[in-house]
Amino acid sequence: MTEKWYVGVDLGGTTIKMAFLTSYGEVVTKWEIPTNTEDGGIHITMDIAKAIDYKLKELNQEKQHLLAIGMGAPGFIEMETGFIYQAVNIGWKDFPLKDRLEVETGLPVTVDNDANIAALGEMWRGAGDGAKNLLCVTLGTGVGGGVIANGQILHGASGMAGEIGHITSITTGGSPCNCGKTGCLETIASATGIARLATEAVASADGNSMLKQLFDQKGDLTAKDVFDAVNKGDELAAEVLDETAFHLGLAIANLSNAFNPEKIIIGGGVSRAGDALLEPLKKHFERFALGRVAESAEFKIATLGNDAGVIGGAWLAKQKVN
Amino acid sequence: MTEKWYVGVDLGGTTIKMAFLTSYGEVVTKWEIPTNTEDGGIHITMDIAKAIDYKLKELNQEKQHLLAIGMGAPGFIEMETGFIYQAVNIGWKDFPLKDRLEVETGLPVTVDNDANIAALGEMWRGAGDGAKNLLCVTLGTGVGGGVIANGQILHGASGMAGEIGHITSITTGGSPCNCGKTGCLETIASATGIARLATEAVASADGNSMLKQLFDQKGDLTAKDVFDAVNKGDELAAEVLDETAFHLGLAIANLSNAFNPEKIIIGGGVSRAGDALLEPLKKHFERFALGRVAESAEFKIATLGNDAGVIGGAWLAKQKVN
Repeated sequence: MTEKWYVGVDLGGTTIKMAFLTSYGEVVTKWEIPTNTEDGGIHITMDIAKAIDYKLKELNQEKQHLLAIGMGAPGFIEMETGFIYQAVNIGWKDFPLKDRLEVETGLPVTVDNDANIAALGEMWRGAGDGAKNLLCVTLGTGVGGGVIANGQILHGASGMAGEIGHITSITTGGSPCNCGKTGCLETIASATGIARLATEAVASADGNSMLKQLFDQKGDLTAKDVFDAVNKGDELAAEVLDETAFHLGLAIANLSNAFNPEKIIIGGGVSRAGDALLEPLKKHFERFALGRVAESAEFKIATLGNDAGVIGGAWLAKQKVN
Repeated sequence: MTEKWYVGVDLGGTTIKMAFLTSYGEVVTKWEIPTNTEDGGIHITMDIAKAIDYKLKELNQEKQHLLAIGMGAPGFIEMETGFIYQAVNIGWKDFPLKDRLEVETGLPVTVDNDANIAALGEMWRGAGDGAKNLLCVTLGTGVGGGVIANGQILHGASGMAGEIGHITSITTGGSPCNCGKTGCLETIASATGIARLATEAVASADGNSMLKQLFDQKGDLTAKDVFDAVNKGDELAAEVLDETAFHLGLAIANLSNAFNPEKIIIGGGVSRAGDALLEPLKKHFERFALGRVAESAEFKIATLGNDAGVIGGAWLAKQKVN
């Protein structure tokens, strides 16, 4: 075997996803290790270095078989230096991630934000189909995003570009958001936000509703309960999802008028709702986007799932080497 | 004189602004010619070619003294080919602007949208101070915009990027916009929009107001009337401007959460309101932008005025040559 590999690393609060990939973005092997957040996350870079060495041994490969590492991390990152100002879930504060990982692995390291590498992964090998202007929206516990223009991920003046979840959807009286503001898109379009909207809706709803019955049974509701009820024809659940789709469609249309993406990729757990979400989302988007902007934009559900990060990491590493 | 020049051309519906500039963006000479929209705008490219030759003669310079032309035009443009799909004010439909102007001048031509070259001009020689991530908002008869990321103007999938004026500010029951939608930012933050808000405000206002007295006198109101009344302490006028600032601040904050600009440059006739607009605008912006996004963004009034276009045109031409 002569083709060399890139290492993709996707750091999360509980697991670190890792993979070796070819220069075409094919996953040779992928695996996970637990995230050790003890002692302010000081062990993480050595855990990654060891995991790479063990995996090479398992595959009977030498270290020279690896070209570079591309890594995604949560938190506030200075992209050029790979310095982490703060990553609350990991315990890092002023942590020189790139330098540490380079020393411990002997490989060149490129670091970017986790939402950004997921977007790059989808651009390269996923729903992006190679489009150069993409908007990626990740609807999970929170709402994240990545904006790719001319094939480059946007970082902005201080690495904050892509914070789509903190677009303000409700200007007055909105729910509190983790960021300290209120009424952010994240409070409406994340899994948590949808569950909250559903709980509020059943509290004020009259009459019979599948969603209300479910709530009376279980005592709470999840985003998945909402999607399941929509698919079974429940009207109240459809109203909840339409509210999410309205605010998400408006926010995406407003961004699209400024940025004119070719693909709008919806990922994260909430995207498993599929057409139950996409159909109302497109309807609201088309109402608020300029005609030519709507015509050139295609909505797609992300296709790489949990692999988007390691694939995007490998893409970053490849860009660095080339 | 050995230093060669670039030609900046900024095409408007009534005049064509032209200038020769050094490679440092210094204006050597600038002048205007009328826009001849007769016969579907067919004479425009020859008028520009002739104007360049006359000006060279006047300055006792040869054609070889010019390196390239950068031109801004209104309408829908295919950037790579310089082909104009449609420019209603000019009369062009499917017009090969770049090819025509290259044939008639013998110089290489680069074409971009008029709002974009104004943004590039401000980045290069104006309020941008060389920042690489800029949001430019032009508040004139309409509301235009340009988004610059990593020093490059964004065009998007079909050249529509930067259409900030068509962000939806009022989702239900908003005023009709020229684009065919309703409630666009342009209906609230353009000179026309501010005049409309003022006229509505005096119609429903009780008591004494400078703005109301002025309306009773003149029978109509302009954006400038509103600014003048604000500066004289009129409360009703301040309320009108605060409504504009609220929607503009919200739209810019939402975009900034996605783009994280270093400078936000406000240009166009409405920007002459100065602090009367900037102060409420910043207040609303800071309420809706993420903390780190607001910290890294500086609001500035555009400094180049009507020269922004020809300077940005020269920058485009210089990029092309280099």
